[in-house]
Amino acid sequence: MSLLPLNGSAGEFDLNDLRHLWGVLSSEDRVTGFRLLSRDDAEDFFLSLAAQEQAEVILGVPSGERRLWVRQLAPDDAADVIQAVPRETRDILLALCDERTRREVVALLAYQDDEAGGLMSPRFARVRSEATADEAVRYLRQQARRQLETIYYAYVVDPDQRLMGVVSFRELFAAPGDRLVRELMEKDFISVPEDMDQEDVARLMSLHDLMAIPVVDIEGCMKGIVTFDDLVDVVEEEATEDMQKLGGMEALDTPYLQTGLADMVRKRGAWLSVLLVGEMLTTTAMGYYQEEIARAVVLTLFVPLIISSGGNSGSQATTLVIRAMALGELRLVDWWRVIRRELASGLCLGCILAVIGGIRILLGDAFFHGYGGHVPLLALTVAISLVGVVTWGTVIGATLPFILRRFGFDPASASAPFVATLVDVFGLAIYFTAAEIILRGTLL
Amino acid sequence: MSLLPLNGSAGEFDLNDLRHLWGVLSSEDRVTGFRLLSRDDAEDFFLSLAAQEQAEVILGVPSGERRLWVRQLAPDDAADVIQAVPRETRDILLALCDERTRREVVALLAYQDDEAGGLMSPRFARVRSEATADEAVRYLRQQARRQLETIYYAYVVDPDQRLMGVVSFRELFAAPGDRLVRELMEKDFISVPEDMDQEDVARLMSLHDLMAIPVVDIEGCMKGIVTFDDLVDVVEEEATEDMQKLGGMEALDTPYLQTGLADMVRKRGAWLSVLLVGEMLTTTAMGYYQEEIARAVVLTLFVPLIISSGGNSGSQATTLVIRAMALGELRLVDWWRVIRRELASGLCLGCILAVIGGIRILLGDAFFHGYGGHVPLLALTVAISLVGVVTWGTVIGATLPFILRRFGFDPASASAPFVATLVDVFGLAIYFTAAEIILRGTLL
Repeated sequence: MSLLPLNGSAGEFDLNDLRHLWGVLSSEDRVTGFRLLSRDDAEDFFLSLAAQEQAEVILGVPSGERRLWVRQLAPDDAADVIQAVPRETRDILLALCDERTRREVVALLAYQDDEAGGLMSPRFARVRSEATADEAVRYLRQQARRQLETIYYAYVVDPDQRLMGVVSFRELFAAPGDRLVRELMEKDFISVPEDMDQEDVARLMSLHDLMAIPVVDIEGCMKGIVTFDDLVDVVEEEATEDMQKLGGMEALDTPYLQTGLADMVRKRGAWLSVLLVGEMLTTTAMGYYQEEIARAVVLTLFVPLIISSGGNSGSQATTLVIRAMALGELRLVDWWRVIRRELASGLCLGCILAVIGGIRILLGDAFFHGYGGHVPLLALTVAISLVGVVTWGTVIGATLPFILRRFGFDPASASAPFVATLVDVFGLAIYFTAAEIILRGTLL
Repeated sequence: MSLLPLNGSAGEFDLNDLRHLWGVLSSEDRVTGFRLLSRDDAEDFFLSLAAQEQAEVILGVPSGERRLWVRQLAPDDAADVIQAVPRETRDILLALCDERTRREVVALLAYQDDEAGGLMSPRFARVRSEATADEAVRYLRQQARRQLETIYYAYVVDPDQRLMGVVSFRELFAAPGDRLVRELMEKDFISVPEDMDQEDVARLMSLHDLMAIPVVDIEGCMKGIVTFDDLVDVVEEEATEDMQKLGGMEALDTPYLQTGLADMVRKRGAWLSVLLVGEMLTTTAMGYYQEEIARAVVLTLFVPLIISSGGNSGSQATTLVIRAMALGELRLVDWWRVIRRELASGLCLGCILAVIGGIRILLGDAFFHGYGGHVPLLALTVAISLVGVVTWGTVIGATLPFILRRFGFDPASASAPFVATLVDVFGLAIYFTAAEIILRGTLL
């Protein structure tokens, strides 16, 4: 059954209805709903969609209407849409672009979509260095009617297209009309290379509150601009990737509801399997202490408690360090400082948990179920193990991202489950070693 | 020992050196380094700092220089700095602002710092609806020299300050000079209420690619604008908070290296203690199966493996769902769809792990260490438990954020460690129940 008023005419069904239903509509219903919108609403809505969804709409409407929608897109957005469709469909979409856009899109498709070149628009405003402020303003006024990405910065290039300076529209506008662009332009501008990672581009623009940043090639020639409207998407995309890795899986690349079951299982299954294999070391570790366990089964009662406390404290530490690294708050050189801090935090946290854990065992024994004899010694064993495991988990969780980064891997791969797995094995060793020392001659 | 060339004169020590060292410098060395910069560099650097760091610089420089730096700040940024210092220092800073800024800052301080009112700048450009495009452009040109947050949007208000329309500078500029602002302005503009959450403001601006968004009160009166340069900070801040909660702790609010040990231990210790208490249920659960354990100690070998697999799959599911909710991809109404999907994913993932786990036990028994008799049955028990635990973990991890959100809590509180703790208890029950059924009459 369709969720849409299919017999309704345009106007009965509006933008808000569609926005609200969009998430739950099938691909066909999305297109049907989209075509019920008034022309103005449809344009607004189309431009607010993600590239993947724009592709869905373009490929869904009758082929006579496709050209109309493709031509709504700036070249950088058109390139994103084309990258979002299967390879065999790309040429169909490319053929719908006008000549100039097609050339620009093809050039943009040569870049990775997570680097500056893949984000940039080739449509920026150029001004001559010898123009006056008035001439430049007049020129930009003409450009304002054309499809430039922004008129709010103008770029001064030499005959070889090398970028010489940047001038903001506001400065041009505020200056006396006869001042030369050359005198007004910022020569000490910030630019980025074509292959700079999009996360770094976003951070740089945010740091300097830039509405647009120029992208230059290795010779300093101007290739395009990245504008502020891409920033939020980039930052959200990178945070999503980091979070998913931190949650113990490969990053999805597509929105949750648009990821197929097979893809989902593959991206989650790979890491779950690795973690399972890692966790098998706990079986070996437990096997090593099997004799102790057989003598004092009561020891096993606290195994999940001990290892999960190590995992939890490791999860906290790795999350903190990975996020601080992603935000640029921590660099490799800070490793020693961080580890000292985490050692201190881990010891404090371990002592807190030790007190709670120890008291719980004494109370549990007194009021609920007996743990057999030697309960104070048992409580001491658990308490000391908690201090050791929590400290160890914290230090490992904080160290692992530094190690990964040092060797060129993504620190976010030090996921919480990965740290927990590492900690589990050592946690068992700490616990049973403590038990052997403290309980020798009594329970063991 | 100081890291800075304290005897060097200004100029020997430059912007890049300071940026590079900033993270590892003490508060005093930061100020010393800052004062070694040339005036231009110091201004650039100061404006690129976070509010907390700007406060540190202002309070660190000799009191005669403080006024200079406070006055570099737009009112919304000054309000952020004042909120970043201890209450008793606020009046000192406030006294350094000029009269107009002081009034604006005091008004801004009345808002929460994570809502639209707390982000906005009161300095926006107003134009009359009866002005011509040329008049409006001329007026904005005058304003371009003043401290307006942006001249790229102008706001048309009635005599009661109610917002009637918005016109972009680009439209004014591209239009014939004698057209009236009234005819050019967008009446169907997007505005936000003062108390809208900053994350929603950022999402709305990003969705519509807006450089600035007007903030209005309940009567529609214009209070200020939020500009694009706050967006990235907001999005990163919200992602950081979600990540930290997901990692099983309270959000820090301050950068990692600037969070004191006491604060750190409090924010992490509270959740670790709650999780420890929750995890004590596993002790109770293990106690319940103590007889089975005593009869077949071999069963305990696989306890960490089973419960951690449940925790890991739960961690994946909760991360995916929480992030998709934060991005607006999932809403409450989607819960049933998500749970069906996760049930399917969980079953697939469980089967994959069951095969790996089962094979590992058979191989381990054959080549390394004997697990005693009935190994195929033991492998079957572990395999079936893995299917059950992974499916259960996945479904719980996906459901919990919906439940929290339904009852008005932050879904990100369904942290990976919290889900893992919930799953551990049920995981033990699943494992020992499977063992009782499959191994009855053999090992048990």
